[in-house]
Amino acid sequence: MSDFSLVLFTFIGSISALLFAGYLTMFIMKQSEGNEKMREIAQAVKDGSAAYLKRQYIVVGAFFGVVFLILSYLVSQKYLVFFVPYAFLSGGLFSGLSGFIGMSIATRASARTAEAARTSLNAGLRVAFSSGAVMGLVVVGLGLLDLSIWYTVLNWYYSSNPLPHGLDKIGAITSTMLTFGMGASCMALFARVGGGIYTKGADVGADLVGKVEAGIPEDDPRNPAVIADNVGDNVGDVAGMGADLYESYVGSIVATMALAAAAGLGFRGITVPLIMATVGVLASIVGTFFVKCGEKASQEVLLKALRRGVIVSAVIVAVVCYFLVKMTLGAENIGIYWSIIAGLLAGIFIGFCTEYYTSAQYKPTISIAESAKTGPATVIIHGLSVGMLSTAGPVLAVGAAIIASFYFSGGAKDFNLGLYGIGISAVGMLSTLGITLATDAYGPVADNAGGNAEMAQLPPEVRERTDALDSLGNTTAATGKGFAIGSAALTALALIVAYKEELHIFGVELDLSLLNPRVLVGLFLGGMMPFLFSSMTMRAVGKVAGDIVEEVRRQFKEIKGLMEGKAKADYAECVKIATAGAQKEMIVPSLLAIITPVVVGLVLGVEAVVGLLTGATVCGFVLAVMMANAGGAWDNAKKYIEEGNVGGKGSFAHKAGVVGDTVGDPFKDTSGPSINILIKLMSMVSIVFASFVVANSFFK
Amino acid sequence: MSDFSLVLFTFIGSISALLFAGYLTMFIMKQSEGNEKMREIAQAVKDGSAAYLKRQYIVVGAFFGVVFLILSYLVSQKYLVFFVPYAFLSGGLFSGLSGFIGMSIATRASARTAEAARTSLNAGLRVAFSSGAVMGLVVVGLGLLDLSIWYTVLNWYYSSNPLPHGLDKIGAITSTMLTFGMGASCMALFARVGGGIYTKGADVGADLVGKVEAGIPEDDPRNPAVIADNVGDNVGDVAGMGADLYESYVGSIVATMALAAAAGLGFRGITVPLIMATVGVLASIVGTFFVKCGEKASQEVLLKALRRGVIVSAVIVAVVCYFLVKMTLGAENIGIYWSIIAGLLAGIFIGFCTEYYTSAQYKPTISIAESAKTGPATVIIHGLSVGMLSTAGPVLAVGAAIIASFYFSGGAKDFNLGLYGIGISAVGMLSTLGITLATDAYGPVADNAGGNAEMAQLPPEVRERTDALDSLGNTTAATGKGFAIGSAALTALALIVAYKEELHIFGVELDLSLLNPRVLVGLFLGGMMPFLFSSMTMRAVGKVAGDIVEEVRRQFKEIKGLMEGKAKADYAECVKIATAGAQKEMIVPSLLAIITPVVVGLVLGVEAVVGLLTGATVCGFVLAVMMANAGGAWDNAKKYIEEGNVGGKGSFAHKAGVVGDTVGDPFKDTSGPSINILIKLMSMVSIVFASFVVANSFFK
Repeated sequence: MSDFSLVLFTFIGSISALLFAGYLTMFIMKQSEGNEKMREIAQAVKDGSAAYLKRQYIVVGAFFGVVFLILSYLVSQKYLVFFVPYAFLSGGLFSGLSGFIGMSIATRASARTAEAARTSLNAGLRVAFSSGAVMGLVVVGLGLLDLSIWYTVLNWYYSSNPLPHGLDKIGAITSTMLTFGMGASCMALFARVGGGIYTKGADVGADLVGKVEAGIPEDDPRNPAVIADNVGDNVGDVAGMGADLYESYVGSIVATMALAAAAGLGFRGITVPLIMATVGVLASIVGTFFVKCGEKASQEVLLKALRRGVIVSAVIVAVVCYFLVKMTLGAENIGIYWSIIAGLLAGIFIGFCTEYYTSAQYKPTISIAESAKTGPATVIIHGLSVGMLSTAGPVLAVGAAIIASFYFSGGAKDFNLGLYGIGISAVGMLSTLGITLATDAYGPVADNAGGNAEMAQLPPEVRERTDALDSLGNTTAATGKGFAIGSAALTALALIVAYKEELHIFGVELDLSLLNPRVLVGLFLGGMMPFLFSSMTMRAVGKVAGDIVEEVRRQFKEIKGLMEGKAKADYAECVKIATAGAQKEMIVPSLLAIITPVVVGLVLGVEAVVGLLTGATVCGFVLAVMMANAGGAWDNAKKYIEEGNVGGKGSFAHKAGVVGDTVGDPFKDTSGPSINILIKLMSMVSIVFASFVVANSFFK
Repeated sequence: MSDFSLVLFTFIGSISALLFAGYLTMFIMKQSEGNEKMREIAQAVKDGSAAYLKRQYIVVGAFFGVVFLILSYLVSQKYLVFFVPYAFLSGGLFSGLSGFIGMSIATRASARTAEAARTSLNAGLRVAFSSGAVMGLVVVGLGLLDLSIWYTVLNWYYSSNPLPHGLDKIGAITSTMLTFGMGASCMALFARVGGGIYTKGADVGADLVGKVEAGIPEDDPRNPAVIADNVGDNVGDVAGMGADLYESYVGSIVATMALAAAAGLGFRGITVPLIMATVGVLASIVGTFFVKCGEKASQEVLLKALRRGVIVSAVIVAVVCYFLVKMTLGAENIGIYWSIIAGLLAGIFIGFCTEYYTSAQYKPTISIAESAKTGPATVIIHGLSVGMLSTAGPVLAVGAAIIASFYFSGGAKDFNLGLYGIGISAVGMLSTLGITLATDAYGPVADNAGGNAEMAQLPPEVRERTDALDSLGNTTAATGKGFAIGSAALTALALIVAYKEELHIFGVELDLSLLNPRVLVGLFLGGMMPFLFSSMTMRAVGKVAGDIVEEVRRQFKEIKGLMEGKAKADYAECVKIATAGAQKEMIVPSLLAIITPVVVGLVLGVEAVVGLLTGATVCGFVLAVMMANAGGAWDNAKKYIEEGNVGGKGSFAHKAGVVGDTVGDPFKDTSGPSINILIKLMSMVSIVFASFVVANSFFK
């Protein structure tokens, strides 16, 4: 395959994804948005979300400006090549764009889903799932686009200009492409942290006054924080997740491309991840056609329909990759194919574990619900215990994937080839992202549709249908989270290896022995980082929630007739408070992630940085799984109680269950998912600042 | 210094500690145990504690028997030297004895403390502190005794018998001595886990029904679980802690002795830790004489008195060690002295951090109390956030201690000398254990005295005085915990190095690079272990608490006149339930700790084991600090509310605070402290089974 045909193929894949996303958007926009009340509510959510993103992009824009100047300075000092500041900007831009587009569609799809759910469950599913699919396809489409553009530019440039010291052309291309990952990671972190603080601050705040104090149901229009809560689903669970997975996606691909250069596979080595990703995009498009069912489908049938789409895509990728590896890398490297399969299987297995530990169909979640009989304390103890126990499966899966992909790809004979195998298994895990993200991102749309139906006082069967879609979404989201978290661990490892390669290029050889005290101290510092970071993000949620609580209390007190449904709440004020709070609180944890690897490098040297990154990856992975699963289990335990078990709604046990759910909110939607980005961003920052740190470190 | 004079000096130190402990015991026993009611209550607690220990020693005895047989088999297969099974037994025996003696005195001191507190605060302090000092001195005295006996035996044996392959005499002695640490660790784990489950199962159970459901105060004699709760303080916080710190103490010393052999320091290298420990024991005895004050002392004056004792001991050690290092290792190795000081300072700093994050005098705990205004969910979120944030100080302190002790002791030039420096810093941290443990172990005695005063309906000023002693105990316990947790991290590192040395003796050279996939997988598995382990221990507390709740509810229902104080509760039944539950639940987590390193070694090889140990140490340290501090902060936040802040007793905020305290109970007294032992026990097991694993591993 030639350069040209590789780029052309990738480009076609990218454009196909974007075109198909456009087609789905048209389908969604053609649907009716319902009656005036519904449109009005949807508009409020749309405005709130847009206002939030606007403020966020101003803050983030300022941040990107500062980093751009710093990188430009480093370019002027010859620490970095000319392209880096622009690569950084483009990564941030595309990551932000993914979130923005996904969110725009999601906010437009929610009322339409509610309206469609008036007809049937299936009609509702089609609208909601289409919105999710737009998100998934935009993420992978833009990812491939950015990759193919930069590959073209750098390939053209290095064909006629001198190569950097010690690099061949592929090495020069991939080491620059790595740096656009840093832009995507930064954007993703801000989106996840800011959005996560917003969504859970608003959610917790709304629940604390609404459900607990005033005793009104969720999504009740009398609650002044109800719009902010719905906005939160969009800015956190949609825009935040989009930016997050964009970053995972391109991060795993560029890291693997860099490892291909190190493994001496040359052009063939970078072809494989790019083609795999492109095949995955096309397979995802095919998969979406399999997500359909009869008009009167049960929830089980719906779940099967969603799963069928994912499985079809995965099978296509699995089959095509066999020939891809064989033709590109030769029959002697067919082991690399098994590395891909190892990654794919590990992702599926982690998804299964997540479902087992968080679904009310299985014992762990039911046991949490039962522990609610003895009050909130036992719910918390039990939920944390389940969350901690649930780390075993994912750790074993990732461990098995590491060992399998390393040895299958020939790591025993050629160490670098084995490391390339680990990278390629991450790409394998993420190759079907287009459709796994679709099944994940449709959840918040269904959730918002439910809120819309409740506030617009649609007939109860509509709410029942949207609830069914929402609860289905929780199950599929579990699979999505499994892929996100598993791929984060593998991608972080690939990035750490890429970092070592980057240092190798500068002529720095490392003593990475576990017994090197600087490596050890790095490990301790890295192990601490996810805890510190989670502490800050959880506290931020608490603060924003506290502000919301006070505002809602004020409105209940000052707006006469609000509780009787005679006066209208001031929704905009709550939106404003949550927006301002999230912006303020997201700065410090984000800066912590960016500054720490540079400071550790300067003070303790690059060996400590590798320790830092590894420690953060290990502890971060375990903690993230724990938080995500405990949070999910608490959420579903509460729902299980609300379905009439262990006392049902309004019982002592239900109150205890609500406490668990509230604690779980920041766990699963703020701190947990942010850790994924934290560990990758720290690696990216280390790579970009490597030359500067090496030249200026106190420990040479 | 000759062999003989070294052993003699150590032996004298050991006997001095034990004699002084005997003197203090006589002082305690001379005090009046109060009126009949008080004696009766004390007797019930004594009986319950003895019954618990008896059952525990039967289970543990069976376990030790099995392991003894396994080790004997390995001896017969030439994997281990002849002494190992006996060393294992002696470690377990002495560790168990430390806990048993400490507990026997503690149960005898509580009524006497209550009676003395009738006179004055200071009189109460003297009795309680004496009991704590007995505990501290017995631990260090028995530790030194076991060390000096084994040193004598092995030294004599290897003087006239052939040395094992590849070892000089010092190496042969120290590598066998390491194995008695495994016995101590096993005993400590059972004591900590079993005792921890018991104490918190009973405590949580008693609180859930008594305080929350029935609305009766803590330690109310109407609560059938009240004796079990008091028994728990003794078997968990006293016997468990004694066994735990015995293990830390001898573990750090024998690991450092083994590193001395590796660093080629020979006899001089093992003299230093032994003499340091002996000097520390004598300094601790001197320190106890400084713990006194006038009859009408304020709490602040009391705290100063306790601190004075610790500081005097630390200064004595710091001064003497300077000359010790200079005379033993020569002026060229005086840097090792600074390693000792680094360890000592790190321990003090961690204690300070613990106090800052858990005392109601500072902002973090107060902010948790304030978050109680918005209910239990925010208390939990805030408490977890504080716990996570509190990991930063200890991690930085341990990191600084590692770097400082490595480089001060000359690690830049001689790597093994640097590692010896890390070990010696752990010994430095623990050298004053005699007195730091005394200030820690007196807390439960004061706590029990309070329970006794409450149940015997002594005048309220007595309870006020015991409460003052108890709350003082919480502050000093913070310092004690700081030492325990910091030293566990450093000791674990020293043991990991010792493990590598052990493998080196077998001719196995390791690739311990972070990028070795087996090391990486080991790190992930190790990172998971503390979470898995905590999950099991927390769930166990929940289960035992659930059983207690049902029993108390049954008694409230079936025993007529109980709530009116006319009938007597069946305390013994609750004691029985907690005992049986703790015994049952402690088995699986303990086996997990022992089996995992062997299985990982057999399946993935010894490099993965080093990864496992390191990952467990890093993640375990951070998680243990988090759990201990969050638990302590919740406890004191609740007390702060009870003092009349944020609404005071009985308010909505108070109820939320009780939820936080209940969640914190297993955090700070079961799971958190058990992790310390977990990480050291896994290292010990790896060392003892090293030869077997190397010979039989799937990965050679």
